[in-house]
Amino acid sequence: METIKEGDFILIRFKDKRYLKKVEKDKNFSYKGGVLRYKDLIGKPFGIIIGDLQIFKPTLEEIILYGIKRETQIIYPKDSFFIAKKLNLSEGKKILEFGTGSGATTMVFSSCVGATGKVYTFEKEERIFKTARKNLEKFGFLYNVVMFNEEFGPLEVSKIEFDAAFVDVREPYPFVEKIHKVLKPSAPVGFLLPTANQVVELLKSLKPYFGDIEVLEILTRYYKVNPERFRPEDTMVAHTAYLLFAKKLSI
Amino acid sequence: METIKEGDFILIRFKDKRYLKKVEKDKNFSYKGGVLRYKDLIGKPFGIIIGDLQIFKPTLEEIILYGIKRETQIIYPKDSFFIAKKLNLSEGKKILEFGTGSGATTMVFSSCVGATGKVYTFEKEERIFKTARKNLEKFGFLYNVVMFNEEFGPLEVSKIEFDAAFVDVREPYPFVEKIHKVLKPSAPVGFLLPTANQVVELLKSLKPYFGDIEVLEILTRYYKVNPERFRPEDTMVAHTAYLLFAKKLSI
Amino acid sequence: METIKEGDFILIRFKDKRYLKKVEKDKNFSYKGGVLRYKDLIGKPFGIIIGDLQIFKPTLEEIILYGIKRETQIIYPKDSFFIAKKLNLSEGKKILEFGTGSGATTMVFSSCVGATGKVYTFEKEERIFKTARKNLEKFGFLYNVVMFNEEFGPLEVSKIEFDAAFVDVREPYPFVEKIHKVLKPSAPVGFLLPTANQVVELLKSLKPYFGDIEVLEILTRYYKVNPERFRPEDTMVAHTAYLLFAKKLSI
Amino acid sequence: METIKEGDFILIRFKDKRYLKKVEKDKNFSYKGGVLRYKDLIGKPFGIIIGDLQIFKPTLEEIILYGIKRETQIIYPKDSFFIAKKLNLSEGKKILEFGTGSGATTMVFSSCVGATGKVYTFEKEERIFKTARKNLEKFGFLYNVVMFNEEFGPLEVSKIEFDAAFVDVREPYPFVEKIHKVLKPSAPVGFLLPTANQVVELLKSLKPYFGDIEVLEILTRYYKVNPERFRPEDTMVAHTAYLLFAKKLSI
Repeated sequence: METIKEGDFILIRFKDKRYLKKVEKDKNFSYKGGVLRYKDLIGKPFGIIIGDLQIFKPTLEEIILYGIKRETQIIYPKDSFFIAKKLNLSEGKKILEFGTGSGATTMVFSSCVGATGKVYTFEKEERIFKTARKNLEKFGFLYNVVMFNEEFGPLEVSKIEFDAAFVDVREPYPFVEKIHKVLKPSAPVGFLLPTANQVVELLKSLKPYFGDIEVLEILTRYYKVNPERFRPEDTMVAHTAYLLFAKKLSI
Repeated sequence: METIKEGDFILIRFKDKRYLKKVEKDKNFSYKGGVLRYKDLIGKPFGIIIGDLQIFKPTLEEIILYGIKRETQIIYPKDSFFIAKKLNLSEGKKILEFGTGSGATTMVFSSCVGATGKVYTFEKEERIFKTARKNLEKFGFLYNVVMFNEEFGPLEVSKIEFDAAFVDVREPYPFVEKIHKVLKPSAPVGFLLPTANQVVELLKSLKPYFGDIEVLEILTRYYKVNPERFRPEDTMVAHTAYLLFAKKLSI
Repeated sequence: METIKEGDFILIRFKDKRYLKKVEKDKNFSYKGGVLRYKDLIGKPFGIIIGDLQIFKPTLEEIILYGIKRETQIIYPKDSFFIAKKLNLSEGKKILEFGTGSGATTMVFSSCVGATGKVYTFEKEERIFKTARKNLEKFGFLYNVVMFNEEFGPLEVSKIEFDAAFVDVREPYPFVEKIHKVLKPSAPVGFLLPTANQVVELLKSLKPYFGDIEVLEILTRYYKVNPERFRPEDTMVAHTAYLLFAKKLSI
Repeated sequence: METIKEGDFILIRFKDKRYLKKVEKDKNFSYKGGVLRYKDLIGKPFGIIIGDLQIFKPTLEEIILYGIKRETQIIYPKDSFFIAKKLNLSEGKKILEFGTGSGATTMVFSSCVGATGKVYTFEKEERIFKTARKNLEKFGFLYNVVMFNEEFGPLEVSKIEFDAAFVDVREPYPFVEKIHKVLKPSAPVGFLLPTANQVVELLKSLKPYFGDIEVLEILTRYYKVNPERFRPEDTMVAHTAYLLFAKKLSI
């Protein structure tokens, strides 16, 4: 049975809060109610309860929500989990991403395409690019991710036929034709767009390159978990972004 | 460049409708407006436009929505895509599924764990089991799926430590303790529950086996894609099921 | 105790369906399962159960949903109930409405302002205007409603200071300045807009006439009423229109 | 034209915030950016802009949201506006309310039934009762509201046949039969229930007294009003309560 070792990441749940931490012998986790010495965890199984705390092995969702440094608004797992599978990602696929941001979606793509697949991701802002690289390195995702500190890299990617593409940049319209050139026939593309104005603009730009267009939003509604008083949480995230999906037409 | 061959599955988009079909030389696709002879597609690229029709290579989502035979209410991709990644599935993982149903979720799990992973799935109804097997076989998912025509198979699975489990059966409460025994420490479990009564009942059954409990619903809201009149579709799916996630506690 | 009389409107509930009918001695209501002779209802109390049928006195909501003839897409009570009170309507108020449509919203306004108030409503299409008038007459709302078969009537309304205004026309932008002139200081105005493009356009047109702007949608989610299997209905109305509210600025 | 007088209530909008205040000669409104002397407003029209501030005449919604003292969780206008009209309230109607709370819903009912109608409202907690009375008095709603500091008053109300009833108490089940006795035939009743457990319990208690049952939630989704970047607000209220409506059966 796997036990907690020095250097492991752990997810600490305390009341309604979650913290992602690294187990370092000489360090502690201080919380309202006490102090947890990390060295006391070593050799214990994940999933243990220590007083008010529950200690878990972090999932991909928790790495994204609680583990990465954010330079930009991240794409939430509710969106990126759907995007990755909607783009038909599975082991061995090659995906092109424009707008690495903090690397949150890159991680999801990486986890979908596996060791035989590859994620090519572009980020033009150097500061953001560096943060993303640190995030991806810290949690071990660089083995199948190739990062570019450019807006769009025609040379580097020109000989590859990609299985899918994803775009999260402010002005995605100029990318449409370029992406069309490097995708396999019928391959899906996804766009993340915060505003309705951007969706309207992009819808006008997709013809004649892409067909089978869909625009949607994903809403998650969480519930309080008290079985005596079962009801939704008082507030929820109302909007992250509109998602647009389309498929390459062979024109 | 990959072209359409005899025996390939194709996704035909005609106006607002989609059809998943198999390319068979001597057969046709009849629609309001004409007839498509499949033999005319052979050798052509995916993504071509033929009159009012667009011909694509089906994605996993389309196989689930338009390709499989349904014996039961299927779990929709909006839910299963989230479930699979929330359960932290990635290549090499082993997942246990109770309630194969028509196999829709099994396909998503299969596509996430890849050739080095494995999906163990149980379905007690023989008729449903057989349909699921045909669906999984037809679309090539049996290479990493092990199917059981039983409710719960303690012997077959007893020596494996699973990375995750998923339950979609009417009475999930007796599964809680059994699943706890065969999961790795801290491993996530998911439940799909159509009614609030079931959620209330299950919340009472999880203690002391599982912690870090979350209950949520996922809503997708689609938009009309006319850029001159951008607005949501008139109706939407309001409810498929409540999703409950938890993690194994080491007790 | 009030009993059912000849000429009364009744709301018949049969299984999941509702029908609004007029009690006429010689007529029947035929349904899957039998025939109800209206004359058998006369003298009976509202609220009675006759076999599979429940017989109620119609509410305003039911008159709108099941009683009026529709020439246009009606505004649903979920929206109009909110609009009427958001526009601060109560007894004695005077409201101006552009786009009578089938008269559904006019009825709600009428019911809010009462005998001492007044609804002035404009509809330029003669066919729609006539249907609205029949609807309002049939259900007794003309006592405090003044109808105009014109787009906008400067002369008729120019001497009145209105407490509120409501606009449901395809091109509301030219109405902004005109409405500003006839409203009391600080008075609220509401607009119903099916598309995001219209909202964007209107937002640009409101300055400098109106302030305190709000845009919202109202969603109603209905539940199945089986206490053993409590859960939302499978589908719901996803979109009727965006609502925009603002208040007159004294410029 | 109506102008601002000493003693008037005003609604001040400053950036995204709203404040409901009383105009008192010697007092000021201090905000980030300056001080507004109320005496400078006297004689000015409502709707004026003073620097960063917009000064409006408060609507009923604003009185509820920004004007009343809250002893309890109030019922929001999104719910109470719908409830009042769903209960078919209009001038002259008599409504019975159990659970006055802070009086927010009582105000909406009062505004619907007008001078010829009447609201009978019951609140057993003395502290809450007193706050509600102050709220209703302060904003002028006592002219058609009768308040009782009791849980249920059979004597006081026994001779009246009510047009509608509304219940917002923790344990509404014992009220069902009592309310049935004092309602007119076919009259509507509404219940506000925060939890699914309460809905399940109440659904079991309504038979054989009430029919035509509906359960629903109302969700409002607000949008940012920037026409260049039109999109929903980031967060929204996800849940206030389930609403249950039914009609009296003549049994």
